[in-house]
Amino acid sequence: MKLNIAVLAGDGIGPEVTREATTILRAVAEFGGHDFVFTPALIGGVAITGTGGPLPQATLDIALASDAVVLGAVGDNKFNALSPDKRPEAGLLQIRQALGGFANLRPSVAYSALAGNSPLRPEVTAGADILFVRELLGGLYFGAPRWWNRDENEAINTMRYTKNEIVRVARIAFELATRRKKKVTSVDKANVLEVSQLWRATVTEIAAEYPEVTLEHQLVDSMAMHLMNTPRSFDVVLTENLFGDILSDESGVITGSLGMLPSATIGGTVNLYEPVHGSAPDIAGTGKANPLGAILTAAMVLRHSAGLEADAAAIEAAVAQVLATGARTADIARGGDANQQLVSTQEMGKLVHQAL
Amino acid sequence: MKLNIAVLAGDGIGPEVTREATTILRAVAEFGGHDFVFTPALIGGVAITGTGGPLPQATLDIALASDAVVLGAVGDNKFNALSPDKRPEAGLLQIRQALGGFANLRPSVAYSALAGNSPLRPEVTAGADILFVRELLGGLYFGAPRWWNRDENEAINTMRYTKNEIVRVARIAFELATRRKKKVTSVDKANVLEVSQLWRATVTEIAAEYPEVTLEHQLVDSMAMHLMNTPRSFDVVLTENLFGDILSDESGVITGSLGMLPSATIGGTVNLYEPVHGSAPDIAGTGKANPLGAILTAAMVLRHSAGLEADAAAIEAAVAQVLATGARTADIARGGDANQQLVSTQEMGKLVHQAL
Ligand SMILES: CC(C)[C@H](C(=O)O)[C@@H](O)C(=O)O
Ligand SMILES: CC(C)[C@H](C(=O)O)[C@@H](O)C(=O)O
Repeated sequence: MKLNIAVLAGDGIGPEVTREATTILRAVAEFGGHDFVFTPALIGGVAITGTGGPLPQATLDIALASDAVVLGAVGDNKFNALSPDKRPEAGLLQIRQALGGFANLRPSVAYSALAGNSPLRPEVTAGADILFVRELLGGLYFGAPRWWNRDENEAINTMRYTKNEIVRVARIAFELATRRKKKVTSVDKANVLEVSQLWRATVTEIAAEYPEVTLEHQLVDSMAMHLMNTPRSFDVVLTENLFGDILSDESGVITGSLGMLPSATIGGTVNLYEPVHGSAPDIAGTGKANPLGAILTAAMVLRHSAGLEADAAAIEAAVAQVLATGARTADIARGGDANQQLVSTQEMGKLVHQAL
Repeated sequence: MKLNIAVLAGDGIGPEVTREATTILRAVAEFGGHDFVFTPALIGGVAITGTGGPLPQATLDIALASDAVVLGAVGDNKFNALSPDKRPEAGLLQIRQALGGFANLRPSVAYSALAGNSPLRPEVTAGADILFVRELLGGLYFGAPRWWNRDENEAINTMRYTKNEIVRVARIAFELATRRKKKVTSVDKANVLEVSQLWRATVTEIAAEYPEVTLEHQLVDSMAMHLMNTPRSFDVVLTENLFGDILSDESGVITGSLGMLPSATIGGTVNLYEPVHGSAPDIAGTGKANPLGAILTAAMVLRHSAGLEADAAAIEAAVAQVLATGARTADIARGGDANQQLVSTQEMGKLVHQAL
């Protein structure tokens, strides 16, 4: 099969982890006789430096003409003084919006080889396998009006949702749940926010279309606690944009490192794939970055944009296998464990390639 | 000294835990020759049932005429179908607003006797002592416009802050930090939200008044993770309203149970004291509720409304001592630990009283 993949490596560790991910995709293509074409383009801080804006038109054109967009990371401290609409992150928000994907899938899985890396007790995390479905195009991220009035010393952002925006992401969550443990936990703050009341009513309505799936509602504050106390009790977790941002990062501690977490954004014109971690400028270029988040993101490309489920599963198995041998990048290394050996970004990529 | 205390026990387990807290306050008064006068009043679901609204005028009058308001909990599932402005929780939000306290202090402390109760590893939590300073009168909770339009199938809430609202709560956070480990971690989402940019700029400005205090900024998503990975690295955590709601509940896992957590809201006309836990209607009246959150809240009354620091510290020491003897309410009991004995709400209250 043929797949056009736009590669937006971005800032900080973005390029180095993306390189390992595309290497794995090339290996899969070669092995399976597929034709994967990779087209690089600028986004984020490197785009601001190179073209003056965080999402150049050329990048947008390449992305929209592709079958899948693989993104590294955006963000660079040198732009901290700019307003949100001019920063590297604006490029990320703009491309999310342009591609139209509204359902951001973020798996949070406990790998037994990494059980010692989580601040949570191994008996709490063992077997945990949560899939966050985060609405990605609504809420405070995109709602208008939004401003910071420096004369009036006041600022506002708007949390806005329409029923349709909730319906479409809820359907994806329920669909995915039918293929998993058949449970959806919907997160809101319905005891305070009108938006959450619409959210809860709508999700409840959609649940009726999926009688085989159990729906539970949780308030976002309690959920932040339950996720740590009983991570195993969750299957699919459905959230609005900001709640999903917070809770999926929090759940990174179930896996043990943000560097391990992939994501896929589906439902729009072109699917967008990005590891959950940021650009980590402090370790960029040092070989310390963990490429497994990006490599697992590549697996999601195969699953959600190429229908190559077996290949996706093979990458995931290769990652688990490499971890089991004790190979560790700095973020998942633990002092005093003689079975572990510290490897660089590139070495970790190579090990997964070999295991594959 | 004389202290008029309004007692708004509220719903569910509110009355039973509040009873234990007032018993302790009476004991302190008797011992110290103080004159504490307790005036009960209705709030929440019981007020709706009794008077038609969640915050009757009579309650407001009593509260505003008092030196301190002690609240139990509000919330009752039977009102779930009502809109946010008619629910028991509306009574809570209204009284918060009426009393004017804008700085909600929520300590999150790791008790060594409860180390086994946290899903976090004991070596991660040992010694953790975080004080959340949550802004309580701004942001999405109170911002207008806010509506759910059922015809248009759309809803909005508004996150709004003025600089003054941030200045006053920031000063309290820095003041408190000078008496602790001299570190403030300010939480925002400044890479996306204009409100957070105002927040960050304002907190940075106020920090200059406190050169002995170190300020760090954290994005709310990363913070949700860092709190679990390195709880010991935080001292005072300063947040806007909703972020503080989520993060302080999450940090309940550091202590091991929400039932242990007190809070005080200061800065307004009358200080408001409430345990962090909710009304827990499922266990109301069963004797399973943990009164220690309410009792530790009583200690905060003595500290922040009566200047009785030594008595506050004595209550806190008594709680730690009782926990060390192995007494446990259901929420903090662990099967298989022979040193523990299960006690009821009332027995736990009595044990603290004796230890005092
Ligand atoms: C970089 C930032 C804009 C982004 C977000 O908040 O969505 C990131 O935190 C994420 O979760 O992908
Ligand atoms: C009951 C609810 C309105 C309240 C809040 O969100 O402030 C509660 O969760 C709390 O944290 O005190």
